[in-house]
Parts: sequence; C-alpha cells; structure tokens
Amino acid sequence: MASEVAIQRPRVVIIGAGFGGLSAAKALAGKPFGVTLVDRYNYHLFQPLLYQVATAALSPADIASPIRTVFRRQPNVDVILANVSGIDVARNQVIAEGRSIPFDYLIVATGAQQAYFGHADWAQHAPGLKTIDDATYLRRRILLAFEKAEIEPDHDERRRLLNFVVVGGGPTGVELAGAIAELAKRALASDFRNIDPRSARIVLVEAGPRILTQFDESLSSSALQALEQLGVEVRSGTEVTGCDDAGVSMGDERIESRTILWAAGVEASPASRWLGAESDRAGRAKVEPDLSLPGRPHIFVIGDTASCVDAEGKPLPGVAPVAKQQGYYVAHAIAARAAGKSVPAFRYRDYGTLATIGRSRAVAQIGRIKLSGFAAWLLWCFAHIYFLIGFRNRLLVMVNWAWSFATFQRGARLITGIVGARIRDVKPEAVAKSSVREEA
Amino acid sequence: MASEVAIQRPRVVIIGAGFGGLSAAKALAGKPFGVTLVDRYNYHLFQPLLYQVATAALSPADIASPIRTVFRRQPNVDVILANVSGIDVARNQVIAEGRSIPFDYLIVATGAQQAYFGHADWAQHAPGLKTIDDATYLRRRILLAFEKAEIEPDHDERRRLLNFVVVGGGPTGVELAGAIAELAKRALASDFRNIDPRSARIVLVEAGPRILTQFDESLSSSALQALEQLGVEVRSGTEVTGCDDAGVSMGDERIESRTILWAAGVEASPASRWLGAESDRAGRAKVEPDLSLPGRPHIFVIGDTASCVDAEGKPLPGVAPVAKQQGYYVAHAIAARAAGKSVPAFRYRDYGTLATIGRSRAVAQIGRIKLSGFAAWLLWCFAHIYFLIGFRNRLLVMVNWAWSFATFQRGARLITGIVGARIRDVKPEAVAKSSVREEA
Repeated sequence: MASEVAIQRPRVVIIGAGFGGLSAAKALAGKPFGVTLVDRYNYHLFQPLLYQVATAALSPADIASPIRTVFRRQPNVDVILANVSGIDVARNQVIAEGRSIPFDYLIVATGAQQAYFGHADWAQHAPGLKTIDDATYLRRRILLAFEKAEIEPDHDERRRLLNFVVVGGGPTGVELAGAIAELAKRALASDFRNIDPRSARIVLVEAGPRILTQFDESLSSSALQALEQLGVEVRSGTEVTGCDDAGVSMGDERIESRTILWAAGVEASPASRWLGAESDRAGRAKVEPDLSLPGRPHIFVIGDTASCVDAEGKPLPGVAPVAKQQGYYVAHAIAARAAGKSVPAFRYRDYGTLATIGRSRAVAQIGRIKLSGFAAWLLWCFAHIYFLIGFRNRLLVMVNWAWSFATFQRGARLITGIVGARIRDVKPEAVAKSSVREEA
Repeated sequence: MASEVAIQRPRVVIIGAGFGGLSAAKALAGKPFGVTLVDRYNYHLFQPLLYQVATAALSPADIASPIRTVFRRQPNVDVILANVSGIDVARNQVIAEGRSIPFDYLIVATGAQQAYFGHADWAQHAPGLKTIDDATYLRRRILLAFEKAEIEPDHDERRRLLNFVVVGGGPTGVELAGAIAELAKRALASDFRNIDPRSARIVLVEAGPRILTQFDESLSSSALQALEQLGVEVRSGTEVTGCDDAGVSMGDERIESRTILWAAGVEASPASRWLGAESDRAGRAKVEPDLSLPGRPHIFVIGDTASCVDAEGKPLPGVAPVAKQQGYYVAHAIAARAAGKSVPAFRYRDYGTLATIGRSRAVAQIGRIKLSGFAAWLLWCFAHIYFLIGFRNRLLVMVNWAWSFATFQRGARLITGIVGARIRDVKPEAVAKSSVREEA
C-alpha cells in the first residue's frame, strides 16, 4: 500500500495551503518525500481577488481551487482538512483536532490575520477581509446597507447607512474603496426608488501621509486622483481613534457610518507562539537566512508568518510572490539538505507591484518602470488571470470581468445567510466570522 | 415625485419574487398600476438548478438574479426586501416587519416549503432543498462527509459517512441522487488517499411504486436504468419510517448514513393561514377559476401556494411553468377587471416535463412525444439555459457545464461556513437553515 512506502520516506508536513504552502508542496513533486498538507479549508484561496467577492463582482468558487484537485496527480501529497491548534516541537508533531501528525520536516505557512493594534473590540464593528466567509459577510453588510436605507424613514439613519468607511490605504483598502464607489455610483444607481445610491459617501482613511506607501510617490498621486474621480474621499494622515456600531472617530472628527471595513493591518497567525519562536512586533517568527527556525534546521517558516528582510535590510512585504518564492525555495532546501548538500540563503526577486482602482485604472511599479491608468489596468488583469489556478477559474473570471466591463453590473449581488431574520434587525454581531473569532 | 403619481394609481402588492410573482410583476409593465414586490431575499432564484449548487457544479450567483436589476427599467415596480408575517385582509394590508403595506390588489406567490408529513423532527437529520442557503448547506454536508471519512479510523463510521440516502423519487430526488453518484464516482474519484470515493453508496428511496410518477411508465423505466448505471440503488415502494443522525429506517430495514437528503414532498407556505382561506391537504389555498380567493375578488393566489386543477380535474403540478402562466394570467385579469372587463378562467398549457439524470441523460415528455437519453438531455440543457434570467447567468451556466462535461469535474467544491469549528465536530445542527426554521 502507498502508506507503507510513505513510512520509509521522510515526511514533510506543511501547515497552510495558501500561496506559500501550495508552492512548497508542488515543488516537492517527484522528490523522495511523503508530503502532508494540512489546511482548515478545503480550498486554496486566491486572496488578491477577495475584494471582488466582497463587492459582488465574483463568486467565491471563481477564486478558490479545491486543494485535493490541485494535487490529484501528485501521489506523494496527502491532504488533511483540519484546524491545527499547536506544534509539539520536542516530539516533531503537529497537533490538529486531537490528532498528532509526525514530521521529519515542517513548513509553517499559516499566513496572517487582521490586526487591530490593541483595539480588539473594534473587530466586530470594522470587519476585515481574509477569508471567503469574511468576503460573503462583507458583501452581505454592504448590500444590506443599501436595502436598509431604502426602507429607512429617518433621514440621519439613512445617511449613516449610506456612509461607508474603509480604514487603511494599502492595496486592499484602495481596491475595496474603489469597488464600493463603483457599486454605488454605477451598478446600483438605477435600482432603488426611495434612495439615490449615487449619494453614498465612501471615505478611505489612512494614518500615514499617503496611500499605497509601497509604491513610488508619483503612483500614489495617480491612485489618489483615480479614487477621487470615482467619488472616494481620501483622508491620509488621519488616525482612527475609535470604531463603534454607528461610526468612526478620528480625534475630534467623526464620520457616522453603519459600514466600516478594516484593511489597516495584519499580524501573523499564532504559529510563532506554537513554535515558541522569537517574533517581531507583527508576531512573525524570526528565521535564519534559509528560512529555518534558529536551532531547528528542519522547521521552516514562510510567507506572512515569517519575518524576513531583503538585501538592504528592508522587511519583505506580505504579498503572494514572497510566499510563493519562499515555498519553492524551502522545498528545494529540504531536498538539498536530505541529500547532504547546503543551500544559499533565500533571496527575494521583486518582479513588481500592482494595485487597481476601479474598473479601468491601476498603478504598476516594475523595477524602475512606473505605469498608471488603463495600461497598468490591462497589466493588472493579465497578471491576475495568469496567476489564478486552473483553467476553469481563469475562464470564469475573464467572462465575469468582460461582462462587468461591458455592463457596469455586478453579477454576484446575493445577500445570503439571513435566513428567518427580520431584514431591519440583521446585525453584524449575529454572524460568526473569522476575523473576530477566538482561536481554538 | 414618482410616489405622488403612484398614489393615484391602484396599487398591486405581490408577495414573493419566485416564478409566479416575477412573471406577474413583469406582465404589469406599462399598465396603470403601482406595483410593490416584496421578497425575503434580494434575488430571484432559478430553483430547477438548485441541486447543481448543492452538488458543487454551479455557484449560487449563477442561478440567482437580483430582483432590483430585473425591474431596473420598469419604473412602476417598487422592490421591498422584507419578511412578510401576515396579511390584514379586513384592512387590505400586508404586514412585513412591523410595517403595513396597503394594497388595492394582492397577488400571493409565496411558494412552498419542505413537508415532513407529521415528522417535523426529521427535518434536522434530513434537510431539504428550497433556498440558496439550503443548497450551500447540503453542499457542505455532502463534501464534509467525504472529508470526515478520509480521516475516520473506525470502519463502521467510515461506511456510515460514505452512505448517502435521498428520500423522494421526484425530479429533485432523481437529480440529486444522480449528481451525488457522479460526484463520488467521477469528480472525487482520485482525490483521496485513505478512502475510495467510488465505494460510496447512494440510495434513492421512493414510497410510491416507481420514480418520476409524473412521467409515463416507459420514461420512469429509462430513468431507473440510467440511475442504476450511475451506481444509484433505487428502492421504490419503500416507505421511510424513521430518520435520525445515523441513518434511515424503512420498516424492519435500516440504512446507516450520516447524510440524508429530503426531497419527498412540499407543502404550501403559510399564506393561506394568513388569508384565513380554505386550503387542501398540502396547505394550498382553494381558489376560484380566475385564481382569486372566494369572496375576495381583489386577492389572488398563484403557484405552489394555490390549489388548482386542470380541465380533467387533475391537480396542477408544483412546477415553474404553472406559476409563470398564473402570474401572467393574474396580471392581465387585474388589468381587465380595473377596466371593467371580465376574463375567462385560467387554463394551464402543458408544454412538457423534463428531468435529468447525471451529465448526459434525461427524460422528456412533451404531449405524446417521449424522449430519453442524450437527445432528451440536450433538450433539458437548452430549455434550462433558455429560461434562465439574464445574459450573464446563461453564459456562466453554459461555461460551467461545458467545462464539467469535458472534465467530469465540479467547479464549486467549497466547504463554507465552518469558521473556527473542528472539522470532525461540525454538526448539522450547528447551522441555521431555512427548512428547519420556525416562522417569525
């Protein structure tokens, strides 16, 4: 049986089937290891397009690929659907739902979660966007705000329902704010009788001096201009000092709003606590130049869970290409080490950064090349289709985008999960969601 | 303002945006009425393909159309998202979430819900399939059964997890059983390492003497043969006497199973109770030949909520064409009545019945023409694409079907809504669903 063969081969356990874990498992194809890939979801999620699920442009299945299908033809990979709750470093075992999974090599690729910088109570009022369930939850909140406004007799409450605040001016915040503006001003524009969705106010709040700080200043300005043309108010240099169920406070100022979305920051998953590892301020484990844990050369930490710097000492960004390159690197490092060879330190190759603003504009920075506007947007579309996994998802995303581009419509405008509730009573708190859950 | 004009026009309130309600509202386009369409969901659902969402072939948004978008260019229609809880017949008002919606004419098109024939406690063990939330819930249960089996050490429990029982041999039951068989025997076949999904046992239980009783006997036999070729065990003439969380009892016999799906019958929504109307055994309101309520010529009941017979005295089936034709008829009857004219009695035109079994076979009965096999399946595909609403949904369903047909794969294999739970502990009862909810 396959399992008897597997016993004789060293076992690599990978926690997390995000960009890092998936890339590592794929790079171990045909290599003399048994691979166990553990994830709490049965699908790999293409996170860069998650904001399009939250804003009703794509369906969850369009950006998710069943992990088992990805590895169907790679017989050395065993997929386990389970919640990992700890790592027994002394015994070389991963603990998942009361079960112990032994490893010879371990790759920790558990990603990041929302961070509220000491304000955990804001989470229920300002949900973040990390999972499919987060995205359908945000979609429900955004669409319900318009529905509630349509039947709301009180003027002030109607105003509050039509105000949307996005906190955080990174790519996710910019993409969300742009997409909500287009939803309100185009897709929903003619659909209501008592309210004018075009009167919705969308505010993007950023604590730093400008949005998209990872881009060159000229591209930040292009993005700002594009957002303002879409009708988004951008408040940079403005720190949020409070979030509640009726609005956001920023020092003396306040914006009344029933829909606050959090895109202001992430922290690593609790993996470095499981490992008892030294971590940085964002909870990311400090690693050796080969991404192994200090003193544990057979345990690797990659992606958003690892604290890494580039050649100039600058921290690597929490983006998919870093995780993918690290997954690939670690798979080869393990193979080399098992063969008694050594490997050079991990080095990140930056092929560029992209962010989109609405349906036809984007900014792109590729080495010294800077692009903005429609050309950058085409590049953005191409790159995202290219990196999606599987022919079906590529095809469906293309079809959806072509249709939305031609019609200004959104195809996935469903409010789900409100069974039996009075629409006016549907409360954010009524819904379980991952950003606010306690760890098991 | 539009509302002042509306006050001067008689108001038609329609409860329910299913096939009947939607068809009535559309047929009132350009007529001198204000129309208020109330639904508890923000989308019209194409129910005939709901089983494909439950079996991971389509995404919810592929078969749902936002109601507001459908009526975007019909200015006399006002859409309200709300749960209706009653009708004040004396005051001509619909009660929805504490609000009163006055009407001059009322069309009740609230559809049907699962019926457990006096065994309400079976609902939690054998969920039915009427809503999008039902479908994603069934999808989760079906996919989780395989995931749990993969990590289950106990042989008997693994067997229980790989047994699927569908109760009810009508079109929904037949379509579900066929789709689960194909899922297990084709789409999932190579995806697991510890179990063989092809060993799954799928049993279809029907109390009557044969499946698909609405079809001619020869077509029932074709369907039976097609199901058996897919590996479905069909038990006709077998009555279910008990459902619990570990299986189904049928007299002395028992099938151990963790996944029981209910497709054995429906009853009308509580609308005839709201109306204080006389109803048949299935709770459907008895109506006049013009579909109005006896003694209330301005109140109409259509679709699955109405009890109607055809020219030979046979009850009309609970299918989309009946509801659509009734909606169209009632809209014209109201217009005629407002103009002081009378209308002939409603007469159902039966254009035929279709049911599909798996990916390339179906049965079709169109008047005296009987078709089965691949030709019937092509007709089934064509008819379902044709009757879907909106270019986008047609295109996406076609793309999905073409891809599934070519690859034998399922594109929407997502287990959602399990946030933070231990996979092995995810219990059916943990999830709210419409089939088992109490009315508000």
